[in-house]
Amino acid sequence: MSSFTLGDSNDIGVAVLGAGRMGQTHIANMATIPNAHVVVVADPVADAAEAGRDLARAQRASTDPVAAIHDRDVGAVVIVTPTSTHAMLIEEAIKAGKAVWSEKPITQELAETQRVVDLWRASDVPVQLGFMRRFDPGYLRAKALIDSGELGRVEQFRALSRDTFPPPLDYLLHSGGSFLDMSVHDLDLARFLVGEVEEVHAWANVLFDDVFAQADDWDTSVIMLKFANGALGVVETSRHSAWGYDIRTEVAGARAKVVIDRAQKTPATISRTLPSGFGWEGDLYESFPDRFAEAYRIELETFFADLGAGRVPAPGPDEALETLRLALACTRSWRQNRPVKVAEIR
Amino acid sequence: MSSFTLGDSNDIGVAVLGAGRMGQTHIANMATIPNAHVVVVADPVADAAEAGRDLARAQRASTDPVAAIHDRDVGAVVIVTPTSTHAMLIEEAIKAGKAVWSEKPITQELAETQRVVDLWRASDVPVQLGFMRRFDPGYLRAKALIDSGELGRVEQFRALSRDTFPPPLDYLLHSGGSFLDMSVHDLDLARFLVGEVEEVHAWANVLFDDVFAQADDWDTSVIMLKFANGALGVVETSRHSAWGYDIRTEVAGARAKVVIDRAQKTPATISRTLPSGFGWEGDLYESFPDRFAEAYRIELETFFADLGAGRVPAPGPDEALETLRLALACTRSWRQNRPVKVAEIR
Amino acid sequence: MSSFTLGDSNDIGVAVLGAGRMGQTHIANMATIPNAHVVVVADPVADAAEAGRDLARAQRASTDPVAAIHDRDVGAVVIVTPTSTHAMLIEEAIKAGKAVWSEKPITQELAETQRVVDLWRASDVPVQLGFMRRFDPGYLRAKALIDSGELGRVEQFRALSRDTFPPPLDYLLHSGGSFLDMSVHDLDLARFLVGEVEEVHAWANVLFDDVFAQADDWDTSVIMLKFANGALGVVETSRHSAWGYDIRTEVAGARAKVVIDRAQKTPATISRTLPSGFGWEGDLYESFPDRFAEAYRIELETFFADLGAGRVPAPGPDEALETLRLALACTRSWRQNRPVKVAEIR
Amino acid sequence: MSSFTLGDSNDIGVAVLGAGRMGQTHIANMATIPNAHVVVVADPVADAAEAGRDLARAQRASTDPVAAIHDRDVGAVVIVTPTSTHAMLIEEAIKAGKAVWSEKPITQELAETQRVVDLWRASDVPVQLGFMRRFDPGYLRAKALIDSGELGRVEQFRALSRDTFPPPLDYLLHSGGSFLDMSVHDLDLARFLVGEVEEVHAWANVLFDDVFAQADDWDTSVIMLKFANGALGVVETSRHSAWGYDIRTEVAGARAKVVIDRAQKTPATISRTLPSGFGWEGDLYESFPDRFAEAYRIELETFFADLGAGRVPAPGPDEALETLRLALACTRSWRQNRPVKVAEIR
Repeated sequence: MSSFTLGDSNDIGVAVLGAGRMGQTHIANMATIPNAHVVVVADPVADAAEAGRDLARAQRASTDPVAAIHDRDVGAVVIVTPTSTHAMLIEEAIKAGKAVWSEKPITQELAETQRVVDLWRASDVPVQLGFMRRFDPGYLRAKALIDSGELGRVEQFRALSRDTFPPPLDYLLHSGGSFLDMSVHDLDLARFLVGEVEEVHAWANVLFDDVFAQADDWDTSVIMLKFANGALGVVETSRHSAWGYDIRTEVAGARAKVVIDRAQKTPATISRTLPSGFGWEGDLYESFPDRFAEAYRIELETFFADLGAGRVPAPGPDEALETLRLALACTRSWRQNRPVKVAEIR
Repeated sequence: MSSFTLGDSNDIGVAVLGAGRMGQTHIANMATIPNAHVVVVADPVADAAEAGRDLARAQRASTDPVAAIHDRDVGAVVIVTPTSTHAMLIEEAIKAGKAVWSEKPITQELAETQRVVDLWRASDVPVQLGFMRRFDPGYLRAKALIDSGELGRVEQFRALSRDTFPPPLDYLLHSGGSFLDMSVHDLDLARFLVGEVEEVHAWANVLFDDVFAQADDWDTSVIMLKFANGALGVVETSRHSAWGYDIRTEVAGARAKVVIDRAQKTPATISRTLPSGFGWEGDLYESFPDRFAEAYRIELETFFADLGAGRVPAPGPDEALETLRLALACTRSWRQNRPVKVAEIR
Repeated sequence: MSSFTLGDSNDIGVAVLGAGRMGQTHIANMATIPNAHVVVVADPVADAAEAGRDLARAQRASTDPVAAIHDRDVGAVVIVTPTSTHAMLIEEAIKAGKAVWSEKPITQELAETQRVVDLWRASDVPVQLGFMRRFDPGYLRAKALIDSGELGRVEQFRALSRDTFPPPLDYLLHSGGSFLDMSVHDLDLARFLVGEVEEVHAWANVLFDDVFAQADDWDTSVIMLKFANGALGVVETSRHSAWGYDIRTEVAGARAKVVIDRAQKTPATISRTLPSGFGWEGDLYESFPDRFAEAYRIELETFFADLGAGRVPAPGPDEALETLRLALACTRSWRQNRPVKVAEIR
Repeated sequence: MSSFTLGDSNDIGVAVLGAGRMGQTHIANMATIPNAHVVVVADPVADAAEAGRDLARAQRASTDPVAAIHDRDVGAVVIVTPTSTHAMLIEEAIKAGKAVWSEKPITQELAETQRVVDLWRASDVPVQLGFMRRFDPGYLRAKALIDSGELGRVEQFRALSRDTFPPPLDYLLHSGGSFLDMSVHDLDLARFLVGEVEEVHAWANVLFDDVFAQADDWDTSVIMLKFANGALGVVETSRHSAWGYDIRTEVAGARAKVVIDRAQKTPATISRTLPSGFGWEGDLYESFPDRFAEAYRIELETFFADLGAGRVPAPGPDEALETLRLALACTRSWRQNRPVKVAEIR
């Protein structure tokens, strides 16, 4: 078993792997974290690595992520590389005894994910996956209300997600399908807020963009969920939206209901004559970077706060495994046109 | 074929059949309708009939609904009797050549409903069923937006309904099950706003009240809908609500989304210290009589306006038949634990 | 002293005086009042009187309002005539011992109003003036919260009113100026919700329509209020609005704040691409008839319910007098360009 | 004239003067600014200076703010010291040719502020004062709408501000009175959004806390504003709030109205049975640090972006002077119980 040593928990040295757009977001967020500093930014593209180093005010840039993991000043790694490299880099870091924060998913394959979970369980290395919605203040409040019993027995879960712009064909061909690539966020919230799901039935369709048909994918879907505790749920997904990013989640219990939704982005409402008569209007979010900006910041901050305090960060690889299993069950349900028990997926 | 004669279309004589709570609501709404007046109120309970007559400032009270239909001064009947009598009274009125407005459903049986539809088709008698939500200003606006093309191609339908108080066992035993008794409102809206449904899959559960189990019914359900035009939808239903009547409907298209929801009942918001911190609160509706008060008024007004202008009122028996077929498909899906094509139901 | 006799309090005979647009609104609302019926509709224009009679399903039409007051079947009069005739008709009705509901104001003159108050005080005839906002469910809720002590000591009052369309010159020339004609609604609410006002300072301007200058009037104004109980307040008024009728009232106390505002008219919200980006929109009210439709109904219903139960209806002529005094103080403040104590106005 | 040299505009060296609570906020925000880094944190309290240095990951801590200004690696200073020291430190920095960002106000004295303005005008040193609301996305949007003409001619300005907790006597005794200490934010917005004010009339009262009377101050006030362009406005202020921080601003024009208000803090709404019936609730902000967190970040970011691009930052000392003059006019109006022309204040 690899031995985990964090170094100075009040000033953890960090390697950021990946300096693309999301990598830059995480680097910017690192700047406000009191007990960590970026030592090295690694990206196979040397210019990106150097730009990341400058943004991070870090000591070193590197084109070799694996070397960066093994940097002697590094106690934790932040992985923001392409999905296909997550599993390998997480395993490398666990073996090196470095704490891991990684963008989700570990991989789209169940067996490979299980292998990472097994390695992690055999170690004492803290690993957290980037399910950022769990750290949005709205979802945190919902979770607190549920855990405190204020909702009473949970009866219904209801999630809607619409991305603004559909991805290009290149991306879709390696995305694992929309249940794994997009609905997975709501499936993870279902597990986070309500509990494990026993059975799913998924319907999907190509309604607006043939690129999805070309990728053997779908642009519009709906999933029914039967939870182990008896609750029922739905997850609706669409991969375009003429009105911007549209995320709404509702959990209804015997005593109360909580709705997570941000009614508008900017605190400015305009009243005027509209084409349809007298009215008012507000703006909406464009996409996940603006809607979940705060969640991205809080998830990293919480990870390092947990490391600093010796708490186990969550969600870990075990959570990622179960959420993947659920998304795979949806995919099978849609492919085989029948309800699927989640326990089938192994 | 019976011959339909309305009498003076500027002052239509009306028989109101049934003077219970909803009957009183309709009688009160009749008072504001410019081209109709109540001639007779009929209810087997003489006291109720007389109280109804006084409320309606009508000439006559009667304990015989059939006789009231045949009253020579009556050109139209408003049927607000128990569900089990609707079909018989509608048929009697059609045969008597009197225009009919009736609370839904015609009956819970497909064959009997078909029989009424056939009789109606063979006549020229106007018949309108009381799907009041179709006349709520929110749903009217949604329908206008969809019909005008402002939503673009419709992609998703999403309905949620929660009644505040579960009904007693006596009622449940004759209600036909919650899909026919309650979800039917959302199923009708699905047809009204999006179009015909091809296939459904329904899951249900008894989560909070054993009275539903005793009635072989369920208190919580979710339905997936596959529309003929490719759109996907969900209908969620619960038969209790700690936060009052909770009705929300969303229709999303390629170009816009419309949400029908009344955020609060009274135009007064209170800000104060809440147990959980600083906050504000607004009130919500108790049940359908307060949430849909305006819709109840508008549906009757529209019926008489249509009669006055010689337009065919809608929704007619044919609409009621198709909505019933859809609710029966949901019931079969739940009973047989499988997706069901609506065309199966005949 | 005239002797007040209502007749049958379960079925009060009513004379409606004035059958213009607002008269028709009140006639329509009369139809839903259980313990009153319209006996006669009077309007100097015979066609209007007859149309009103038909709408009211009343027995008689008349071109003589005074004769209608004295109709032997009449126990109460509803006065919806031009403002200049209110005082005379109210006095005639008091002398005849008939209960009075009248549109406000009694008159724009203090002395004449005082004379009506004196006559009323010397009688036992119930008289209610049409300050309809006091009967809107939002304001009723605010009043209840204040009276119950939930707001604590009231500290601030804040009212905004914008009419949609400015009135024509003809109207303005006899309207008494915008403080009496429009701000008076908010001044009455200030007294209703917070209490008597000791001092005012008013500023006004002609900003958008010279017709106001021609009438020696103003289109935009702001008033500061010093209440007898120490609270401070503001009333802002504008006589046009590109976004429809805009009425918002706030009362802040030591323990809570209540805001009376209806966020949108129709329960349908549309999300879409707006010229300025992704956004959503809702509609707003056009004017007082749609915003306060319910208040118009409730004020009449309450009047007749009070009559039926032997309660004294309110607000009576004394309230109208004090609200007029306050509006006159604002007018003097603006004309003389100085703060004015309300006690000055006598 | 002192010569202004910024150093490397892509990596400006910064001295942060003052490491109290707000100093720490600004230090945290500095971490995300791409073209600046903190060189030295100065605070007379050595421990605070060192904690600030650690938080800033800066090279040096100092107990001497003046020395820090003159640090050779410093191109810009961020002043977050007690108000009484602002003028002196700004002057020192201007003389040293260092760019200045300073918390407002320069001072509470007009003559001293004028002296700083004169010094600044004679220099080429960029100076920005911390009116953070001007950088809140809501106010930025309002400003853009007004500047683009979408509101049409501005007619009304309406601001409400309530702080949650009243300050202690010690603070009040040196705060300059509530118009300078608190209403000044709304007065600055009035100038920013609508333009210069010609005349004010202010009323104030002690309604809930005698500590204000002891400080010859007031806890509740209302101001009327007459703008040079003819618009009318009001500013209401209260120094406590049982429902948290309450900031709402409205600007109404001939064509549209913009309301700046954040309806709730957390994107989670809870529906449940309330003591008063069925209802729903959302949370509100506690105070300026949470409501304007984004504005604090954006104002610094904009300052350094302007420095980097060679643009003149705003609002500068001239803006601070005019806003101070307006607040002094309000104070005189209240002290002398009369309307005051702003031009009187010199």
